[in-house]
Amino acid sequence: MQRSPCRPFRLALIQLHVSAVKSDNLQRACGLECFNSPYGTQYFKEYAEKIPGESTQKLSEVAKECSIYLIGGSIPEEDGGKLYNTCTVFGPDGALLAKHRKVHLFDINVPGKIQFKESETLSPGNSFSMFDTPYCKVGLGICYDMRFAEMAQIYGQKGCQLLIYPGAFNMTTGPAHWELLQRGRAVDNQLYVATVSPARDEKASYVAWGHSTVVNPWGEVIAKAGAEETVVYTDIDLKKLAEIRQQIPILSQKRCDLYGVEMKNYRSKKKTFPKGAISKALQSSRANSTFKYTQPSHGPSHV
Amino acid sequence: MQRSPCRPFRLALIQLHVSAVKSDNLQRACGLECFNSPYGTQYFKEYAEKIPGESTQKLSEVAKECSIYLIGGSIPEEDGGKLYNTCTVFGPDGALLAKHRKVHLFDINVPGKIQFKESETLSPGNSFSMFDTPYCKVGLGICYDMRFAEMAQIYGQKGCQLLIYPGAFNMTTGPAHWELLQRGRAVDNQLYVATVSPARDEKASYVAWGHSTVVNPWGEVIAKAGAEETVVYTDIDLKKLAEIRQQIPILSQKRCDLYGVEMKNYRSKKKTFPKGAISKALQSSRANSTFKYTQPSHGPSHV
Repeated sequence: MQRSPCRPFRLALIQLHVSAVKSDNLQRACGLECFNSPYGTQYFKEYAEKIPGESTQKLSEVAKECSIYLIGGSIPEEDGGKLYNTCTVFGPDGALLAKHRKVHLFDINVPGKIQFKESETLSPGNSFSMFDTPYCKVGLGICYDMRFAEMAQIYGQKGCQLLIYPGAFNMTTGPAHWELLQRGRAVDNQLYVATVSPARDEKASYVAWGHSTVVNPWGEVIAKAGAEETVVYTDIDLKKLAEIRQQIPILSQKRCDLYGVEMKNYRSKKKTFPKGAISKALQSSRANSTFKYTQPSHGPSHV
Repeated sequence: MQRSPCRPFRLALIQLHVSAVKSDNLQRACGLECFNSPYGTQYFKEYAEKIPGESTQKLSEVAKECSIYLIGGSIPEEDGGKLYNTCTVFGPDGALLAKHRKVHLFDINVPGKIQFKESETLSPGNSFSMFDTPYCKVGLGICYDMRFAEMAQIYGQKGCQLLIYPGAFNMTTGPAHWELLQRGRAVDNQLYVATVSPARDEKASYVAWGHSTVVNPWGEVIAKAGAEETVVYTDIDLKKLAEIRQQIPILSQKRCDLYGVEMKNYRSKKKTFPKGAISKALQSSRANSTFKYTQPSHGPSHV
């Protein structure tokens, strides 16, 4: 893809207050909001969709209508009898540009605070997910993926200048690590990092931390939501990124003779669907009684 | 080495106000303070020492006298006509346990704020440096080394539970990155990280940030000096480290099928000198007119 070097662009983070009703969330998504929903291993199977499917169709339409790149949080995806925690990206023409299946499943146990075992119901993704835009290359992770520095390092090596993590850290890991991890990834790889969380709902079984954030390559927080439903806008300045990389040239000073972060088994897969494929697949999947569309949809994942 | 698992131990960070007079610094080192000195590429050649040499002999004596593990900041080391920025570690019997030559030389240029080009005079080290204690395995880096996540990742893989970085970030990079980098290394690798800086001297040509710090594996700052000369004590709790690794098991959840941080060309070198070698080498080097002992010594390095 042809890029205009250092062309600035605007990023909007949509921190949605999740309704329990999928149709509500999809309706509100028309206002550029992507869907988020309460989180729990007990919901995954019931709320899963195929991709393309109802929710991703909506994302595709919104991306096209607004002529934007739209990163659609995540949904539980059903494929071949397995469930994945999956983020989709649509381009300004409505085409699917990337599909990231969460690589690191969220299994933690902080006694008396937070226990969660995503691997009980989900299968992990097995690949890195990048996509090109006229502004820069973007790397995708979902929530817990952010704890694994190697993924961001590889995205950086591959030329990504912006990493985006839909995610919902909780009230234990949120205050402790949400901002720290983003700032760490940004400063170590000298790139922009953005996170998008659901708004906090104190009554939900899984209470999200909120605080969708953008960090610049110097490690500074340049935009940050509170806990409430909101949209955060920020300008991404790739000229600043280039300057920082020149000032402290750690990327060219790596001692590649002594160490290396290596990517293994990478299969580059073109994820773009042919025009009309989404609508067709959606119709076909609606006609398939083995797959239920129930409410609500599932949104970005948790730490 | 036989280890008592999870045995707590006390760590002291000596944030010395650097005198311009080497003999003063060495004298004060008797109070457990290791030497630090003003920093600048113009000083390296003049103030360099061989190892073993005057400064490291003093460190060895202090370690033995106090029966402690002593990590001696860094000095410019002369070896084979080359200069290195080198940190030495002495055990309770006075033996040299490790010698780390700074691997990443500090070349930065933030216009109007800080310019520095260490590679004009120094040669880089070419190896990782770890040492064993009865408490845990320790990994060493010097200052700018801390910016390179891979080094800490490899130390973590090799079983280090504490990383120590003598360093002197400056008044630009200090407030921006000193604490962030330590917290990032700690939380990503779930280990303790300690940094030791010289105290701030506003009159020096290179003004150090100070703020020697200890961060626990949860990413919390558990001890932090101000800018002044001081000693910071903290207890390292390896039981807490084990608990955190169990609660958020990122180390066992790495997707080694998809990525890996690899160490290349590692040569394990036993650095321990036989008993008496330091004194002998010191006498011999004093008798050698080609090597001058002048003042002051050079201390921990800069970002």
